[in-house]
Amino acid sequence: MPNPYRLCLVGFGNVGQAFARLLLKKETELKEKYDLSFTVTGISTGSHGSAINPAGLDLAQALDLAERGGSLEPLSKTPPPKDSLALIEACQADFMFETTPVNPQTGQPALNHIAKALEMGLHAVTANKGPVVHGYRQLTKLAKEKGKRFLFESAVMDGAPVFALFREPLVGANLLGFHGILNSCTNLLLELMEQGQTLDEAVDYGRSIGITETDPSNDIDGWDASIKVAALVTVLMGTPLTPQQVNRTGIRGVTSGMIAEAKAAGERWKLVCSAERQEDRIVTRVAPQRVGPDSPLYSVNGTSSYCQFELDVLPGLGILESDPGPETTAYGLLADMLNILEVV
Amino acid sequence: MPNPYRLCLVGFGNVGQAFARLLLKKETELKEKYDLSFTVTGISTGSHGSAINPAGLDLAQALDLAERGGSLEPLSKTPPPKDSLALIEACQADFMFETTPVNPQTGQPALNHIAKALEMGLHAVTANKGPVVHGYRQLTKLAKEKGKRFLFESAVMDGAPVFALFREPLVGANLLGFHGILNSCTNLLLELMEQGQTLDEAVDYGRSIGITETDPSNDIDGWDASIKVAALVTVLMGTPLTPQQVNRTGIRGVTSGMIAEAKAAGERWKLVCSAERQEDRIVTRVAPQRVGPDSPLYSVNGTSSYCQFELDVLPGLGILESDPGPETTAYGLLADMLNILEVV
Repeated sequence: MPNPYRLCLVGFGNVGQAFARLLLKKETELKEKYDLSFTVTGISTGSHGSAINPAGLDLAQALDLAERGGSLEPLSKTPPPKDSLALIEACQADFMFETTPVNPQTGQPALNHIAKALEMGLHAVTANKGPVVHGYRQLTKLAKEKGKRFLFESAVMDGAPVFALFREPLVGANLLGFHGILNSCTNLLLELMEQGQTLDEAVDYGRSIGITETDPSNDIDGWDASIKVAALVTVLMGTPLTPQQVNRTGIRGVTSGMIAEAKAAGERWKLVCSAERQEDRIVTRVAPQRVGPDSPLYSVNGTSSYCQFELDVLPGLGILESDPGPETTAYGLLADMLNILEVV
Repeated sequence: MPNPYRLCLVGFGNVGQAFARLLLKKETELKEKYDLSFTVTGISTGSHGSAINPAGLDLAQALDLAERGGSLEPLSKTPPPKDSLALIEACQADFMFETTPVNPQTGQPALNHIAKALEMGLHAVTANKGPVVHGYRQLTKLAKEKGKRFLFESAVMDGAPVFALFREPLVGANLLGFHGILNSCTNLLLELMEQGQTLDEAVDYGRSIGITETDPSNDIDGWDASIKVAALVTVLMGTPLTPQQVNRTGIRGVTSGMIAEAKAAGERWKLVCSAERQEDRIVTRVAPQRVGPDSPLYSVNGTSSYCQFELDVLPGLGILESDPGPETTAYGLLADMLNILEVV
């Protein structure tokens, strides 16, 4: 591959823009530490148009335009391709970074973006759980056939390296199960309920600060947590699992009374995710649970998340991600790129 | 290197024996998964003599002899070498695993064992903090010159992969500081004090279950915690630091009254380790501290340990090791071997 490496960004929302800012912030450091340079040759966005220039786009200018709500098209050297797939085909990149919104039912359009990128000989990196749950095996197989990589560190627990952890650091270990808090939205909502809000009030507040989506059911009915459980089981336990197969209970049944009762007993309600290998199957669950202060889950507050793994060689290995933001997710994308390039 | 790989075990106490048992337990799995076989060609012990056979020793028999308090010498094909250094020289191995007791002042004899192994062209793996604190730079340099590796995953937090975490998974991230609970002995003593014991009673109980050493000062005066801080700073923050340079306060000043007062307020005393990069220096500290249930440190009980890292790209990444034992430390040694062999 040529250095500067050519990057294509498909999706340019919160995470895509945070990734662009991180690239600019780390530009000198990456050059000095790893002799690594990059140039962005294509950007495809949902609401700011697209831009393409195989010789390199001005990333700072693209950020500026997007932040001000403008279109990226003036940056494009030639009229931009009609859609993301055409842009991936035309932009002559070495890496594609996929950050479009999650589609829990089908994994689209991310799945197609990644397949197209791999077909064209690009490495594919995504922050999107959808294609992991709906396409892990086929995309990994396709990547292998093409001599490329498909990585997705940011798909679960943002930039906390849960997937990389099971490559080198936990080599030779077998995962027996895990439990934790993987959905930050419901974790924040439950905390707001502890402070006296009703679920509806908490959801409204969540919307006002951009944590809760317009339709909150993806979070409060446990779908997002179930997708993450499915992704972890699929990749780390080698067993394909869909979110629909997870025994799922959301937080709609957690009343203010239950919250108050727990609080009086020095406990908290948390939406707990779990998976356990049993003989020939894996039992998975997402459900609200009361936890006391002696549980590592008790102190996981705000938008933090936590997962504790049980392995044949380590009885309990917990990973806490404290106070993540789009920058954290952006780091996971960068880490994937650096690992593909094997800089260490 | 030939496969079966030839291993030399220097030290055959709790950890060394747990490693031998793990090797036997994983023998078939390692062969099937990675086409990896091994044979142990030399064992040097503190209290069971030594044994050597370049064609391979019977590891199960060695374990059996050591467990029954016998000498390993009957296993030796030739009269065993007079000391560990001579054994490392004579045993024709590819890997040396060093698990002798820690010497916090000098790192000896582990330091010499590792240097000798590297000189002889063996990879060196240790569970010992001493040589990390006292010889990280020179041993890493020597390993590089010899085209070998010097790894020590189990030196801090047993088999929880704190060092490997900073290779691939956290590539491109810069460590700004950390805080946590790294000494499990004092953590258990403080818990026993919460249950009503005095420090002396707790120490006696700790001795009876093998958690506290005959001379408990290494733990209760904060030396063990300081060595771990020094090891993390030296390796992960790229700045050589000795345990003597850590601002160190042990738990002797924590009285039953203080424990009771904290308990009444819903808090606990913990021996907290920390490091923080400040402009041109790194400020390190080991000291008792009161923590409440909203801190991840509160639920770190028994012999568990926890470290939370602050990075330029991740505001807080916590690693919890729950209920470790000699098997956990043994796994760290195995993981180092598998990583040296680049099986993944």
